[in-house]
Amino acid sequence: MVAFAVFGSTVAPVTTEIINTGSELLLGRVLNTHQQWLCRTLADRGRAVHRQVAVSDEPEALVAAVREGLSRADWVIVTGGLGPTCDDRTRDLVAGLLGRRLVHQPDVEVQIRAYFEGRGRPVPARTRVEAMVPEGAEVLVNRHGTAPGLALWLDSNPLRESGKPSWLVMLPGPPRELRPMFTDEVLPRLDARFPLREPFACRTLKTTGLGESYMEERLEEPLRDLVARGMDLGFCARVGEVDVRFVARGPDARDVVDEAERRTREAAGEFVFGVEDDTLEKALVEACARRGLHLALAESCTGGHVAHRITNVPGASNVFEAGWVTYANAAKERDLGVPAGLLREHGAVSEPVARAMAEGARLKAGVDIAIAITGIAGPSGAVEGKPVGTVFIAVAHAGATRVERRLNAFDRETFKYVTAQQAMAMALRVALGDGPADAGTRS
Amino acid sequence: MVAFAVFGSTVAPVTTEIINTGSELLLGRVLNTHQQWLCRTLADRGRAVHRQVAVSDEPEALVAAVREGLSRADWVIVTGGLGPTCDDRTRDLVAGLLGRRLVHQPDVEVQIRAYFEGRGRPVPARTRVEAMVPEGAEVLVNRHGTAPGLALWLDSNPLRESGKPSWLVMLPGPPRELRPMFTDEVLPRLDARFPLREPFACRTLKTTGLGESYMEERLEEPLRDLVARGMDLGFCARVGEVDVRFVARGPDARDVVDEAERRTREAAGEFVFGVEDDTLEKALVEACARRGLHLALAESCTGGHVAHRITNVPGASNVFEAGWVTYANAAKERDLGVPAGLLREHGAVSEPVARAMAEGARLKAGVDIAIAITGIAGPSGAVEGKPVGTVFIAVAHAGATRVERRLNAFDRETFKYVTAQQAMAMALRVALGDGPADAGTRS
Repeated sequence: MVAFAVFGSTVAPVTTEIINTGSELLLGRVLNTHQQWLCRTLADRGRAVHRQVAVSDEPEALVAAVREGLSRADWVIVTGGLGPTCDDRTRDLVAGLLGRRLVHQPDVEVQIRAYFEGRGRPVPARTRVEAMVPEGAEVLVNRHGTAPGLALWLDSNPLRESGKPSWLVMLPGPPRELRPMFTDEVLPRLDARFPLREPFACRTLKTTGLGESYMEERLEEPLRDLVARGMDLGFCARVGEVDVRFVARGPDARDVVDEAERRTREAAGEFVFGVEDDTLEKALVEACARRGLHLALAESCTGGHVAHRITNVPGASNVFEAGWVTYANAAKERDLGVPAGLLREHGAVSEPVARAMAEGARLKAGVDIAIAITGIAGPSGAVEGKPVGTVFIAVAHAGATRVERRLNAFDRETFKYVTAQQAMAMALRVALGDGPADAGTRS
Repeated sequence: MVAFAVFGSTVAPVTTEIINTGSELLLGRVLNTHQQWLCRTLADRGRAVHRQVAVSDEPEALVAAVREGLSRADWVIVTGGLGPTCDDRTRDLVAGLLGRRLVHQPDVEVQIRAYFEGRGRPVPARTRVEAMVPEGAEVLVNRHGTAPGLALWLDSNPLRESGKPSWLVMLPGPPRELRPMFTDEVLPRLDARFPLREPFACRTLKTTGLGESYMEERLEEPLRDLVARGMDLGFCARVGEVDVRFVARGPDARDVVDEAERRTREAAGEFVFGVEDDTLEKALVEACARRGLHLALAESCTGGHVAHRITNVPGASNVFEAGWVTYANAAKERDLGVPAGLLREHGAVSEPVARAMAEGARLKAGVDIAIAITGIAGPSGAVEGKPVGTVFIAVAHAGATRVERRLNAFDRETFKYVTAQQAMAMALRVALGDGPADAGTRS
């Protein structure tokens, strides 16, 4: 993987550190999704994170981490430990470290009470501690929970040798509270405290169907002069997808990434299915919706995984008609009308059976496009000439039925994921009439 | 959440720090799964991790993090940066920091070449750098990739004020290389370098159907004396599940957790469906397999999510017969035989339709147990008296059909997950003949 470069060397960055607190992190009981979300949200705005640290709720560990962060960084973000229980210690420990009193803020308590009362729930006694605020701290409103966030500007930071100021931002641990608070309350203050020195723009194009190094080769020439002028070009290979990312700084940053996107679509548009966080399932549902097409699925070895992903897309019900998970041969015959002779002669994992499943599903559901998948997910089930990972993917539509054979020799869950990516990419091309994979326009 | 306590206060712990390197971490492009996996693997063996740090591949940042780790900790684990590309700098930078030469090890290069040759792939020229080893380092064999791990015992650690020894272990970044290397190569050396001072045992029971605080209440009395004797009892509420965890240290540690498990099964066995990493889908598939029962699914709003999870379990094909994803009403009529009048009169999201779907699926597939789910996943689709999140879950078997109405007012994906948990828990009780949820015995 060529790591994405985001930080122009011409810019003195705001040194930024994230401290995630919580014993459950160091016990490996939960995954630290804050790190990825915060780092990505900041990177997409041209901001670098220089270090991330996780420590337990132990007072010594927490205080040491905050002290070290504040001794180095312009901006320190602390997550977790603002709730009402006895292991929520961030508020007290930070106030102690900085020698600030905790002051009860009646308006904050009113907000917290309103949160409970609005949900018809009694107000717990310990709620009051959440209204205690270190002297001089700004309160960040929590619209999705009770513990407010806190932001403390240290005009001359006593923990920093240089005496330079630092900004300490404390956020509640639950992601559904932290994320909107960060977007709505922290980012605007960040831009006011530490304005970007020059405009920044980045864009990610999502592609499928061409490997990372082939994509790199194909874009080298068209993007050469933009890269020479300082645009960062990055590739990130994911399962069945490659992200292509452009980052530019300076007065024409936006124009540069627009131009890079235009040229990429010109050179490799048939592989581009979306931008930023778009998924193949979303692209497929939207492509079908635009053209009024309906979809059915006949899954064997993927066991409902494709149906699950397609129905994750809001609005899928306008497009998705029906799915069959025909694990047993009897189900393939009964539900999809696959002839018993075909199953006997070729086996369930075969080109003719995949084709018959797709055509049967299309006919039965009365839809425009049907996807069928039959294969060997493993760990057992291999037969002569068909190792574990063998899969046949069929897409039937009015024009024809296309079947592809793949070998996805992975563990069971990866097998399902990869196969689903391939199947949705095939169906997407059909839904788009084999035009460019992303027919939509960007706003 | 009551965090799990694992670290007995009587034991001087081996101070342990993890340093994850990689610019993609600080750009938020990938999730740091190493942290959770390493922390959990160690916690389950009675080992504490005291701090985790992530830094980019920038030489200054990486060296600063390793220097700080080694100035504090008995054991420092560094992940990433051992590969052959130009941003793989761990090997060189660590050797530089510690003033050790890098020595070419021909036997390591032979292993790396064999890895490529065994896969019929040409050996890249840059492979040679992976065979460079800091003087005095032990090589940790990589059975799933090319870059070996490295372990360096610093008998008197020059970076530690106390002069105490430290152990520096460097591991490759890809999880499928890191995990087996950690288990096979690192853990045995860890036990030799830093033996546990006293025996340690922990066990997690997986439960469903009783909330965290009710479970706590129910176990308080039966486990009181074990807790008084020093056993840690922890609860962790997950979506639709509660983990109950016992941790004990000392000569009778194993007996204590065995006894805690026995008493918990006595007091709340009907809610226990497994141990450690067991899932509800695994418990359901295994319960059906034990009793020779076959299963079918009729899913509307969960859109194949239950089928997907059940078919994730190896061996599911012995139990799972067929699934229908009947998103459209036409599919409910056609595939499951739900009477059109029922749909008209009660609506698709109703008790009678859920019942008819389950009974239709059971009949059609000729199975013992059928699960049916119909509801409103949102974000739109609410009707009078049936808000978003309303769902009816039916389980049909020879005895009867049971239907439950739930309100799972979450985002779309969480709705699917929670509903699947509830449906599988209902089916599990039927599959077990309403006996205790985990009828299996532990080895």
